[in-house]
Amino acid sequence: MKINANRLRQHFEAMSEIGKIGETGTCRPTMTPLEKQGFELAASWMKEAGMKTHIDNFGNLIGRLEGKNTTLPVLMMGSHLDSQPYGGRFDGVAGVLCAIEAVKALTENNIIPERSIEVISFADEEGWRFNKGLFGSRGILGKLEKGELQRTDKDGITREKALRDFGCDPDKFSESEYKPGSIFCFLELHIEQGPILDNSHKPIGVVSGISGPLWLTVKLKGMAGHAGSVPMAMRKDALVGAAEIIIALNEIANQIPGAPTVGTVGTLNVFPASRNIIPEEVTFTVDLRDIDLERRHKYETQLMDKIRSITQKHQLTYEITEDTNLEPRYCADWIKAIIHNECKNLGLIDTPELMSGPFHDAMALSYACDYGMIFVRCKDGISHNPLEYASYDDLALGAEVLYGTVLQVLKKEKAV
Amino acid sequence: MKINANRLRQHFEAMSEIGKIGETGTCRPTMTPLEKQGFELAASWMKEAGMKTHIDNFGNLIGRLEGKNTTLPVLMMGSHLDSQPYGGRFDGVAGVLCAIEAVKALTENNIIPERSIEVISFADEEGWRFNKGLFGSRGILGKLEKGELQRTDKDGITREKALRDFGCDPDKFSESEYKPGSIFCFLELHIEQGPILDNSHKPIGVVSGISGPLWLTVKLKGMAGHAGSVPMAMRKDALVGAAEIIIALNEIANQIPGAPTVGTVGTLNVFPASRNIIPEEVTFTVDLRDIDLERRHKYETQLMDKIRSITQKHQLTYEITEDTNLEPRYCADWIKAIIHNECKNLGLIDTPELMSGPFHDAMALSYACDYGMIFVRCKDGISHNPLEYASYDDLALGAEVLYGTVLQVLKKEKAV
Repeated sequence: MKINANRLRQHFEAMSEIGKIGETGTCRPTMTPLEKQGFELAASWMKEAGMKTHIDNFGNLIGRLEGKNTTLPVLMMGSHLDSQPYGGRFDGVAGVLCAIEAVKALTENNIIPERSIEVISFADEEGWRFNKGLFGSRGILGKLEKGELQRTDKDGITREKALRDFGCDPDKFSESEYKPGSIFCFLELHIEQGPILDNSHKPIGVVSGISGPLWLTVKLKGMAGHAGSVPMAMRKDALVGAAEIIIALNEIANQIPGAPTVGTVGTLNVFPASRNIIPEEVTFTVDLRDIDLERRHKYETQLMDKIRSITQKHQLTYEITEDTNLEPRYCADWIKAIIHNECKNLGLIDTPELMSGPFHDAMALSYACDYGMIFVRCKDGISHNPLEYASYDDLALGAEVLYGTVLQVLKKEKAV
Repeated sequence: MKINANRLRQHFEAMSEIGKIGETGTCRPTMTPLEKQGFELAASWMKEAGMKTHIDNFGNLIGRLEGKNTTLPVLMMGSHLDSQPYGGRFDGVAGVLCAIEAVKALTENNIIPERSIEVISFADEEGWRFNKGLFGSRGILGKLEKGELQRTDKDGITREKALRDFGCDPDKFSESEYKPGSIFCFLELHIEQGPILDNSHKPIGVVSGISGPLWLTVKLKGMAGHAGSVPMAMRKDALVGAAEIIIALNEIANQIPGAPTVGTVGTLNVFPASRNIIPEEVTFTVDLRDIDLERRHKYETQLMDKIRSITQKHQLTYEITEDTNLEPRYCADWIKAIIHNECKNLGLIDTPELMSGPFHDAMALSYACDYGMIFVRCKDGISHNPLEYASYDDLALGAEVLYGTVLQVLKKEKAV
């Protein structure tokens, strides 16, 4: 192996101490002192690998290995160091640490590339704090939407305040943007976060694309009243309506057994939230994904019909906000071919090609350049959970595939 | 009229300014500076009515009009000044202000009763802050349960800390308890909080009894996972399970159209609450009430069966805590007869007798003495809502009935 598996393991172990919860969990929210601590540690390893580092105005940590020809579009790699509130040690972290390890292997082998290489830990990939993700990766491409700085977290802190507290300057976003054509391609290694590789006993997978999520926020409004006296027939109970919609979404996503469609309500808030009061207002999120965009559209229509009929039945009013609506994005064939080839060189047989249900920073980058993704096996497909697990052997294998892929990509003068 | 309707109205208007939300709402949580402000205002009126006042160690405001014979059991009246988080201006307040007005009318008429009269604003009737109500009225009767002081509100503040911050001393609870036999009877005026009087165009009702609530907390546990990748068939989604239970409870309470059974889930919390994560844990409250205790027991069994089968289907585990389990409590016939008679004296024809779905401090007192309740019409039956409304004319009429009832009760040497 060209990469150093021991060093890589030590990096994982050190990073997992920052924001550790329980034995194996991580809570490292974006734009917090904990993430800053993670950035400082990662930056120290970037420097050891020969990179210069800085944090840009979107809150991205960027390490740059200067190439011989600084005018060439950069080879970009990375993922994120922010975690879910109740997450694991590998989601995002794997992509950052393996990319740093690949660069370190380059410089240890005295390779100075023609084009510069950048490793980025993107700000707020996860999206739970401000209910909208891929902030840093959309940011550098000028793809932020109106009102994003005014989004608040559960404590009422705006994204703008969180950024400024983190040392970023939202007035200087444009200084941190990348010009069209300035990124040659993007590589991201990530744990699969699903059960396919584990079930088929394969350590590594080549990603074919990322299925697009539809993220909605649904708000139902009924009528509060005393839980002890308002007769059942007179009620406008927003939570009963929400419960029926949750079940409808579950049935919609389950209608073709074995299909990759997934539908989830992950958050739900009740107002006024007294055991004694009929719920007047319920707000919940919907996450609907499918590799087949046409089917997702069809299911979305089914869901809208259900929301309409259920709210009518319970005399509720509703509002639906579309927070995110992404179409599937496919990986570049030429990068997939390189990854497959590197897997073969390492003796891996029949490396599976698979879609990603979760989205990643690569999804944002896909609008600016070709991209490729390497998946590392994830035990039982468990992720966004402290029980999330990938073996250090598999991660080292993934880093080695990434290193080989980088070497091959560096040989290309242009995307094919 | 013997009571002063204008003064009573002014008292309502002044009290509604404390903790006012919106145009007509109130948020005056128990054991807070807002409730203290309400207590100070009410205490000033108690003093004007000739009462001595103090706040006891349970956080009850007590006003006492000393009788000629201080060894006789007291005539107790009252209700509460704490409100729901999103409540109205009359719930509880009516019982305190009308009782003060009745005492004021006594002293204005130079009546010094044989037995002493106490007017109490009971602490934490509503029960939403610490998820268990009737705190002050159970407290004075030595009926608190183990662990009540350790209950926390949503900010993690324990009941004990809230009490101490309020100036109470939980180590001296026994000093604030009433000895058996020391209360002659209890009278409570309250808005109906239901639609029966309003629908039958009657300003006043005589309460026959209070239907007992069953309060449960249900906690479901499944398995967190990435909302984008865990196939539907592999999920253990605690929120989908909760949604099915909410609908089951709704169906159980609705099975006999027109029956007075009510079933409500008023609060629900999701963990870890990220739109991106399959819910691992969901906690929600159940409120089930019926005048017919046997039917309520039957429905409880039905609900338990449903919880068992639904959690099994979704591979969830569950825990159920019983927070409150009260049986229906009936008013004393001799007090009902007095109230009916007073209504007749005021020209009210065919005053309805009706059960109370909501519970009240009278429910706690019913275990220590005879009790009677006067209901005042409440527009559209709306309560626990800022839109809650009772007319000042109806409230004055209620206070007049209460005053007459007090006069008649004072004539009794013992309960009949």
